Amino acid sequence: MPSHMGRMTETSFSLRTLEGDDVARKICDNCGFVAYENPKIVVGSVVRHDGRILLCRRAIAPRQGYWTIPAGYLELNETPEDGARREAREEATAQLAIERLLAVYSVPRISQVQLIYRASLAEPTIAPGIESQAVDLFAWDDIPWDELAFPSVHWALNHDRAAQEGAPPVPFTNPDGATGNTMPDGRALPVGEF
Amino acid sequence: MPSHMGRMTETSFSLRTLEGDDVARKICDNCGFVAYENPKIVVGSVVRHDGRILLCRRAIAPRQGYWTIPAGYLELNETPEDGARREAREEATAQLAIERLLAVYSVPRISQVQLIYRASLAEPTIAPGIESQAVDLFAWDDIPWDELAFPSVHWALNHDRAAQEGAPPVPFTNPDGATGNTMPDGRALPVGEF
Repeated sequence: MPSHMGRMTETSFSLRTLEGDDVARKICDNCGFVAYENPKIVVGSVVRHDGRILLCRRAIAPRQGYWTIPAGYLELNETPEDGARREAREEATAQLAIERLLAVYSVPRISQVQLIYRASLAEPTIAPGIESQAVDLFAWDDIPWDELAFPSVHWALNHDRAAQEGAPPVPFTNPDGATGNTMPDGRALPVGEF
Repeated sequence: MPSHMGRMTETSFSLRTLEGDDVARKICDNCGFVAYENPKIVVGSVVRHDGRILLCRRAIAPRQGYWTIPAGYLELNETPEDGARREAREEATAQLAIERLLAVYSVPRISQVQLIYRASLAEPTIAPGIESQAVDLFAWDDIPWDELAFPSVHWALNHDRAAQEGAPPVPFTNPDGATGNTMPDGRALPVGEF
């Protein structure tokens, strides 16, 4: 039985560079465990139904109360398409038919790569999941542009519209070198929240 | 000074499901640290120069001695394109001009998503980096097909050739529902090595 069983010490990590590595890693002061940190993959989709677009009003931080497309972190052992379908189930009780990859965005400040798909509803019903205050289908002119949660929601909606209007089926990337650090109208995002 | 300073206990994690979560996480038995695990992003490129393709013979596990395209894990705060360029610098001392996204592959067994770009050499020189035993430019018919490191190297080379022959510039995905669990000729990959 290891000597530490039955008690808990304080969580304590130090940034140290291991021999043969060239990046400092978070290393547990108690046991030497190396907490490698990697960029995270967000999967999501712009979902159309009868010419309108599915948005979810976030019930959780970050950006609670703001509207977003169904999207979230890819889980272990999941394909991106499966992850995008799962997020739409969880956030909007929606069953998706995925058409194709719409965009690959990156937000290096928060170490995110986003894979965004074009999709439609395979079933006409939607309802808020536990992470959503509300879900709704919006005509283009009714989209709450000032209440969108993230810069990439703006990007994805506009890119989906460009695709709908005949842009070639090549995935879009960040518009004009945008970094995702501010909203498209220049507003800052809350610091430290995400 | 925390009570545990100055000594090291044994690294010991248990799989437990926290309240409000629905997936079991690795939790440190010593201090309660939750080691969230996420899928990893591999960035790489098929690099052409004068009609030949850059391959690197791996000097490190997994698949030491086998040939691969320059590719590796995306680092924190890095865009995928920057990561692909960095990997080519590290593995082949190569300066890349990236053209476009060639493919998005996923290998759910090992929780990998791969973003593979088409690129050319911005400078004509290549040389083995520390992780490569050798680097070389191969004409299509000289590619060492039986000594390629991973299934996705096969996929990427074939998809790059299709692109070269005029396939539309839409990113490819895993061919025919392939999972990446075996080599294209049916050979198994070494278990547990990666």
